[in-house]
Amino acid sequence: MANQIIAVRQGTITEEVKRVARMEGVSAERLRDRIARGTVIVACNNSGDCKPLGIGEGLRTKVNANIGTSTDICDLGIELEKAKVAIRYGTDTIMDLSTEGDLDHIRSAIIKEVKVPFGTVPLYQSYIETVRRNKNPVSMSPDHLFNVIEKHMKDGVAFMTVHCGITLDAVKHLIDHPRLNGIVSRGGAFLAAWMLYNERENPLYSDYDYLLELAKKYDVVLSLGDALRPGSLADASDHAQFQELLTISHLVKRAWDAGVQVIVEGPGHLPLDQVEANVKMEKLLCKGAPFYLLGPVVTDIATGFDHIAGAIGGALAVMVGADYLCYVTPAEHLGLPDIDDVRQGVIASKIAAHAGDIVKLGRRAIKHDIEMSKARSLLDWEAQIGLSLDPDKAREIHSRKKSKNGTCTMCGDWCTYKIIKDTSKKLR
Amino acid sequence: MANQIIAVRQGTITEEVKRVARMEGVSAERLRDRIARGTVIVACNNSGDCKPLGIGEGLRTKVNANIGTSTDICDLGIELEKAKVAIRYGTDTIMDLSTEGDLDHIRSAIIKEVKVPFGTVPLYQSYIETVRRNKNPVSMSPDHLFNVIEKHMKDGVAFMTVHCGITLDAVKHLIDHPRLNGIVSRGGAFLAAWMLYNERENPLYSDYDYLLELAKKYDVVLSLGDALRPGSLADASDHAQFQELLTISHLVKRAWDAGVQVIVEGPGHLPLDQVEANVKMEKLLCKGAPFYLLGPVVTDIATGFDHIAGAIGGALAVMVGADYLCYVTPAEHLGLPDIDDVRQGVIASKIAAHAGDIVKLGRRAIKHDIEMSKARSLLDWEAQIGLSLDPDKAREIHSRKKSKNGTCTMCGDWCTYKIIKDTSKKLR
Repeated sequence: MANQIIAVRQGTITEEVKRVARMEGVSAERLRDRIARGTVIVACNNSGDCKPLGIGEGLRTKVNANIGTSTDICDLGIELEKAKVAIRYGTDTIMDLSTEGDLDHIRSAIIKEVKVPFGTVPLYQSYIETVRRNKNPVSMSPDHLFNVIEKHMKDGVAFMTVHCGITLDAVKHLIDHPRLNGIVSRGGAFLAAWMLYNERENPLYSDYDYLLELAKKYDVVLSLGDALRPGSLADASDHAQFQELLTISHLVKRAWDAGVQVIVEGPGHLPLDQVEANVKMEKLLCKGAPFYLLGPVVTDIATGFDHIAGAIGGALAVMVGADYLCYVTPAEHLGLPDIDDVRQGVIASKIAAHAGDIVKLGRRAIKHDIEMSKARSLLDWEAQIGLSLDPDKAREIHSRKKSKNGTCTMCGDWCTYKIIKDTSKKLR
Repeated sequence: MANQIIAVRQGTITEEVKRVARMEGVSAERLRDRIARGTVIVACNNSGDCKPLGIGEGLRTKVNANIGTSTDICDLGIELEKAKVAIRYGTDTIMDLSTEGDLDHIRSAIIKEVKVPFGTVPLYQSYIETVRRNKNPVSMSPDHLFNVIEKHMKDGVAFMTVHCGITLDAVKHLIDHPRLNGIVSRGGAFLAAWMLYNERENPLYSDYDYLLELAKKYDVVLSLGDALRPGSLADASDHAQFQELLTISHLVKRAWDAGVQVIVEGPGHLPLDQVEANVKMEKLLCKGAPFYLLGPVVTDIATGFDHIAGAIGGALAVMVGADYLCYVTPAEHLGLPDIDDVRQGVIASKIAAHAGDIVKLGRRAIKHDIEMSKARSLLDWEAQIGLSLDPDKAREIHSRKKSKNGTCTMCGDWCTYKIIKDTSKKLR
């Protein structure tokens, strides 16, 4: 893939821009201009068979599914199956967050399998390899971290999360102003521990120019991680979170100046009435850079059902401008998601993204709803099932027991569509 | 139970007001004044053992679960089990929407079982009994309808849905201005068919004064049904819907003048950006009468997962002032919910209500979240599970595979709470 941001700034409508424009139903010229301005990114794996994907202003909201091993559960077969299931139910991207096993092998195996843009968090691998060399993780060397980053880029990942916005100052501020839940980002916790121990600045911040060089060379999208995102409603929208966002806003500009595509990551845990302000702050400070949200979950108590709490926050965020949702599964806060959790997480995020897109994109998004509603009014069950996000699930519920008269078992003989049809042809 | 609205207007703080005030953590005087103004209702079954429940301004948002037989599935045992499950997972009220079997027996059996306010839709029974007498349903007599209404009131129901706001004019307007999905309320479809066939006004509208007399005599709360609620996004916020709301706003005033407690029912299917306007319109036109929403679902395509689409709309509605949510289950639009659908529907609505209450009620609502987040930061799994909406489900996910070190299998050794604790005591 040609370096998109540089090509479009020269006025070129690249093959990738054409493909994305066609897929999204937008004009290629307008899309080109948005990529040039940085309000849209185009992501594509540089290895394997991958369709380019646009994320940002005026485009359908995208969904990401995280997969990956953990120190307790490490089975590549299961992770590959999760990737397949996530893609079947409509995820737009996959991120590998593996922290156990042969990390290089796992990454290569997944990137070979998936045909959607694929992302990673190289920091995890650098930290874990430091520990595996029987070293205290805080002895991780910045050189090693950048070597891992370059290895991931060489492997062809489309994007990667880099926690560049957490600084030594921000961590020290957090010590003086403790939160209920401290730092809940793994990358953030790794880096905070490293910075405090070494009394050194975050290398992803101090050596950001080098990171930009690498990203430009390999044409990889940087997703600026929110290491200080709130991990509870009580910590939402505080100094630490917005200090990091301010830092990130400058890093966005530096990325654009360097010809690097960039996304901004956001919270996390937010009360419903803070969702809009958070999205708008990102859009204002980061000059419209695509906003990638984890959830946000709008209550801390939905343990076991956090995909629903995340869908509530996600839908509202999308309505007011968020561009990209990282799924939350029912296993969030409890354990590594299993395959069914992945399915449920993707579907919940798809519902949230679509509900928001109906507002954000209008007619382009609502077509699917109109088809479904027509099928519903005609009692055309096959069409309704076919239009569902999970046709198997819709069919299972509808066919548990067949209704006697072509309706469903909810209303049976008293189906409104049937009543209206039977008693008055005039009403429809 | 004393007639609340009349008693409080005389300045009395009734036993029920005291109990509700204690339960909600609000001042009894303020609650009394709100009931007198009509912005809060107190509902209580007049038969059986039932705690009085307040719904409206300044109170915790309440959730209703619909149960009941259909012409395809008729098993009282299952319906009683649904009621029990719904109450176990936190529904505040139960409505019986049965349309098959011995309707009087089913109603009595449920009211004996449940200790929460119980509601019905007498119109269904009147319509069905007309058909059972081998008659065309449009020959239903208004006298029979009012007899059934009085029978339900005598049985001690706390509240009932009455579709008083759908008029012959409104139905005729709908014929000239057809919708994609016509009328999707069963009560609305019954009445529209009846009015068109008989060329007569809706008896619940024309004889509203008599209905008020009955409601006052038996101290039953009237829930003014939205017979013309939209059944798809395409039909949302249209003439028919708001014409009915206008009619209802006058009926609210007449109910208050007559000393009758009243709730207003609302949609249905709404795009996310119409939710706030719909809630505010109801609050303005109906002078703060409690607003009871079905969902709203914010997309038509979430078949099989409509509890999630409903939770999204419901949370936003509650944030801006809705008082009472009728659950939506995964079976919506597909079939009669089974017991697990009921569980999932109640939990999704509880999440929506709570997420909205965090904004609407502030500190009173967020306490539970703070306890959970404290338990989370301490890796106290028993406390987290105990604080969950469905402890069994939380335990199931958490214990699928035990983490080796007191964390969970998501992050295992790389748990942020553990990293922070291990590498720096200073951060928390």
